[in-house]
Amino acid sequence: MRLALFNKGRLGLVDGDDIVDVTDQLAPSPSSPSGALQQYIERVERDGAPQIDLAVGTRLPLAEVALEAPLPRPGKIVGAPVNYLDHKAEMEYTTSIADLGVFLKANSSVIGPGQDIVLPYSDKRTDQEGELGVVIGRTAAKVSADDALDHVFGYTCVLDITVRSGEDRSTRKSFDTFTPIGPWVVSADEIPDPDALELRCDVAGETRQRTNTADLIFGVRQLIAYTSSVMTLHPGDVIATGTPAGVGPLKHGDHVVVDIERVGRLEVGVDGSRATAYEQRPGR
Amino acid sequence: MRLALFNKGRLGLVDGDDIVDVTDQLAPSPSSPSGALQQYIERVERDGAPQIDLAVGTRLPLAEVALEAPLPRPGKIVGAPVNYLDHKAEMEYTTSIADLGVFLKANSSVIGPGQDIVLPYSDKRTDQEGELGVVIGRTAAKVSADDALDHVFGYTCVLDITVRSGEDRSTRKSFDTFTPIGPWVVSADEIPDPDALELRCDVAGETRQRTNTADLIFGVRQLIAYTSSVMTLHPGDVIATGTPAGVGPLKHGDHVVVDIERVGRLEVGVDGSRATAYEQRPGR
Repeated sequence: MRLALFNKGRLGLVDGDDIVDVTDQLAPSPSSPSGALQQYIERVERDGAPQIDLAVGTRLPLAEVALEAPLPRPGKIVGAPVNYLDHKAEMEYTTSIADLGVFLKANSSVIGPGQDIVLPYSDKRTDQEGELGVVIGRTAAKVSADDALDHVFGYTCVLDITVRSGEDRSTRKSFDTFTPIGPWVVSADEIPDPDALELRCDVAGETRQRTNTADLIFGVRQLIAYTSSVMTLHPGDVIATGTPAGVGPLKHGDHVVVDIERVGRLEVGVDGSRATAYEQRPGR
Repeated sequence: MRLALFNKGRLGLVDGDDIVDVTDQLAPSPSSPSGALQQYIERVERDGAPQIDLAVGTRLPLAEVALEAPLPRPGKIVGAPVNYLDHKAEMEYTTSIADLGVFLKANSSVIGPGQDIVLPYSDKRTDQEGELGVVIGRTAAKVSADDALDHVFGYTCVLDITVRSGEDRSTRKSFDTFTPIGPWVVSADEIPDPDALELRCDVAGETRQRTNTADLIFGVRQLIAYTSSVMTLHPGDVIATGTPAGVGPLKHGDHVVVDIERVGRLEVGVDGSRATAYEQRPGR
């Protein structure tokens, strides 16, 4: 099933060309910054998955609602640096995730479908990185690769937007709007093997990235095992699994699409109208 | 005022040698992973600070309660790399925070007073870094240094525990137990100038670090301004302001104390009994 947030925080289940409002069934408490899907994922961990009655909620045409980031403020956003060999080659990196470990992105950097990535600098590259996103469902601490998928709630499309400058990855990747997520979360039962998904990322109508998650250096199971050996993963945490070759600079007015087999298609814009010179940043 | 969590999530106000249970007055909803103080900080941003009646709640001797991390799972934990000149010199760093930006620590790494830092590796240094922690009270996006303190809820002691290895800072600093916080949060009105506080960190009875926050490269105001120029800071987010010279390896059985003038004294233990060889980590 595909779960989305829409129309100012409502939780919806996508059913063909419609979306059914299941907020009252699945996440009835008042909304918090982390949103109704987060609340539902925590509920499923605590009480198990409830029956869902699609006849109960309001049904709307999907094309007529405004989709939002399914997880507007995740507990953690974990990123995998240099997790495809072809991206390692294009960036001339000498190390990969096995040596680099994982990095973290600020949970304040999330936007949803149709919103704009805001470019901070007029004179530094800001690149798109299209990635498969894993959403944790059950708390994972030091889990094995064999058990890892038992801890997954579902999958989504992620853009890990990145400035090419000298700062720590957490800074370069955490500007507000730098983590588009969506258009929804597909539950894990629909993705039998996350390490065999076609992924494509287009910018301004041109395909920049095309890969299959089979080419991940740390596949999804191993990435969860590794990450959970360092830090406990909680329900709603998001892992961006890494980007293949083809990263490149964004410019004002670009339209960015991430399309992942069985998962969905995330589309966002790019706003470069507020970019300023790198040397004028605060603290210089 | 000093606000603490104690006895499994109760919110307490420290009053001399006592602690008064103010949970029902200040944070009456069921507890969430982020805790009752987080709930209170969000409430103050939304509705303003309520009157507190110390005659209402149960009063207990402070010495008889078990204090816990005041913010057990903050939205973000932001760290300041190389933010004292003497630490820059001891680590032979060639850059400081002005070039490095900030890093992020996993919110799953928090422990409270009296708990143990768990050392992951038997053959890699895990160092203590004693620091002043800033707790955000009002959402801060692109605020100026002049306005920065208006966005502070209060201050606490933080240990930014760090493995000396080759991984990204977010990995080396995010192992479970690597962010001791406490013993409470002191509200900002009690700290007229956060850039003039004596700070000391003792390990196994010996003083390793002694500084004054006047020696910060980016002072608290500038650090908030810089960070908020990159990422929006939300109520309950914690900024660890950086560590002075004197970092050094921890070993099993060590007792670690961070003592900050006007703020408090945080004490934790060290458990090295589960450490394993670095080469045996998952993913190798």
